Amino acid sequence: MWNSSRSEVDPFIVMDVMEAAHAAEAAGRDIVHMEVGQPGTAAPAAARAALARAMETDSLGYTGGLGLPALRKRIAQMYGDWYNVDLDWNRVVITPGSSGAFILAFSALFDSGDRVGIGAPGYPSYRQILKALGMTPVDLPSAPENRLQPVPADFADMDLNGLLVASPANPTGTMLDYDAMEALMQGAYAHGASFISDEIYHGIEYEAKAVTALQVSDECYVINSFSKYFSMTGWRCGWMVVPEDQVRIVERLAQNMFICSPHASQIVALHAMDCEDELEANMAVYRRNRQLMLDGLPKAGFTKIAPPDGAFFIYADVSDLTDDSRAFAAEILEKAGVAVTPGLDFDPVRGGGTLRFSYARETAQIEEGLARLQRFMAQRGA
Amino acid sequence: MWNSSRSEVDPFIVMDVMEAAHAAEAAGRDIVHMEVGQPGTAAPAAARAALARAMETDSLGYTGGLGLPALRKRIAQMYGDWYNVDLDWNRVVITPGSSGAFILAFSALFDSGDRVGIGAPGYPSYRQILKALGMTPVDLPSAPENRLQPVPADFADMDLNGLLVASPANPTGTMLDYDAMEALMQGAYAHGASFISDEIYHGIEYEAKAVTALQVSDECYVINSFSKYFSMTGWRCGWMVVPEDQVRIVERLAQNMFICSPHASQIVALHAMDCEDELEANMAVYRRNRQLMLDGLPKAGFTKIAPPDGAFFIYADVSDLTDDSRAFAAEILEKAGVAVTPGLDFDPVRGGGTLRFSYARETAQIEEGLARLQRFMAQRGA
Repeated sequence: MWNSSRSEVDPFIVMDVMEAAHAAEAAGRDIVHMEVGQPGTAAPAAARAALARAMETDSLGYTGGLGLPALRKRIAQMYGDWYNVDLDWNRVVITPGSSGAFILAFSALFDSGDRVGIGAPGYPSYRQILKALGMTPVDLPSAPENRLQPVPADFADMDLNGLLVASPANPTGTMLDYDAMEALMQGAYAHGASFISDEIYHGIEYEAKAVTALQVSDECYVINSFSKYFSMTGWRCGWMVVPEDQVRIVERLAQNMFICSPHASQIVALHAMDCEDELEANMAVYRRNRQLMLDGLPKAGFTKIAPPDGAFFIYADVSDLTDDSRAFAAEILEKAGVAVTPGLDFDPVRGGGTLRFSYARETAQIEEGLARLQRFMAQRGA
Repeated sequence: MWNSSRSEVDPFIVMDVMEAAHAAEAAGRDIVHMEVGQPGTAAPAAARAALARAMETDSLGYTGGLGLPALRKRIAQMYGDWYNVDLDWNRVVITPGSSGAFILAFSALFDSGDRVGIGAPGYPSYRQILKALGMTPVDLPSAPENRLQPVPADFADMDLNGLLVASPANPTGTMLDYDAMEALMQGAYAHGASFISDEIYHGIEYEAKAVTALQVSDECYVINSFSKYFSMTGWRCGWMVVPEDQVRIVERLAQNMFICSPHASQIVALHAMDCEDELEANMAVYRRNRQLMLDGLPKAGFTKIAPPDGAFFIYADVSDLTDDSRAFAAEILEKAGVAVTPGLDFDPVRGGGTLRFSYARETAQIEEGLARLQRFMAQRGA
């Protein structure tokens, strides 16, 4: 076997952290999980019940490449409800998670070697998927004064074929408001770059509703998923909204690359969208956890944090404590029994001085984790 | 939006046929479906029941990138049961359908522009996925005397980075025996080409057990799926067996490109493997349908067919009736009310003179379809 150069993608460091945490648990230790980026909750109960019923009567074969029309229509309706955007459901494409949406979007828009700008810090798989497809990720180091979101000046001198932004962002939870989104879209257009907006954390917002790129213009690919707000990570079901003239191109790619998204997951997703009570109960937990984190992390000595606008992460600047966040995360796991993610996953250059704390799990775990972090840091003499 | 050249993949012609068939049905006509390549049956009942139970107690979040260890172990055990191959379960990777396995295999092995040999006729998405990833599919026109399977002489003079074979093949149902498989593998190795074996129709065999490439050598990627024999198309769950030194490379790609395969589907798959009675009942239907087709198609005038060794397709040479299989398939749909697939999907050069008939559906439909085909062809004066 001769491996391709495109196969040389970096490992997901958080996966190593999870493995170390599981190994500690297997050895009998109790670990608080602040590393994982997924809800601890299942898909809404009524949605699971709908699938149990469907399994009795439907053979659940392939759906069309674009997904179940009922689900596509329901998503389009949500854009009216959430953003007051009138969206033609034919522009909605169901995808195998947002992961599948990235593969489709990048394949539809970029050729081998094409350069795509991504914010740093940012979701690590952006970089690795682009590499695996033979494209060139271009890190845009974002400034603390811009709340670690890119601004047009960050790529003014660059030759880019595409720009990918995220709001709320992982790992920071910061959002782009309408003006910031519009400036980035116009900046991309001015470069002749295609614009992709990752909106996977929409619905998990604390102070203001997130802005979708579709409020600004239809000239973009918008990527979202049922994994986070709808609590369906393991079901691998997401969606993408594309300009009208892109639908047929994306359909052909989807038919050939995926045939379709999982049928059962599409049924769960369709019904999850009507489970607002349960989803809002999840939100109440995130809201409470967020407040606990904003109060508790500074008491532990993690003072350089910004209140996240959305998602369920806090990104802490720990550069006055370490320049090796990987070793520091290992020390925290070992001595405090708390799993956290080193920033190197998100920012290969500056991430040696940052940590990401997730507060997606149940409140009791967050309280216990904060208590442990406070004890550990006090003993460490921070 | 500026689309990539790699996005210019051909449409799946069978999808257009399906759409035309559905339009006819919406207009009130009764259509027999001999175009679709999927079982009409659901996943085994006990497997669906296992998922219904799991949904009560498990949040069904992400699994590891390589899949559930219990499922990987059960698949390894099957290689012992089916082929007497002793397989280390750590080499088994769970994938989002065989589609996901192709994306992982091609990304792990080939770079932009790399040339990969595929038999013609063959599964159309091989060609399109390679294109979408920026690679170069190379058609190997196979000879009728080789039962439309490639042989080493077909690529002796070519410069190939990879060779992809399928047994039983779609659309022909022909298989490679041990010697043919070994010759192709050695032919690939002699070229320095990586070898990939698509074994998705294994289990659906009529005269002899299919040979897995793993019986010949571990130096290959083997791709399979729960879609066909296990009747789980819409669940999007497949697997891949890779050499030991490839596992970590594929794991990194899978983590980043897919995060994981659908958790619920992995549970259904695990339990489907213990549902032999129901799966063998499905096989009895395919066996009976196959005999009906082998008797009935020649009576209709489709005399140039070969008995398929496996899968649920018959590929007919209709070149003495037409050189435009697309128009002929449209005529059959219009006048006979039977949907069939033009060969152009499988062989862009010679497929104008071929049709694929699927016999995956219930026997009564097959009987009705054959009766219609016989009436239509008698009236046409074939």
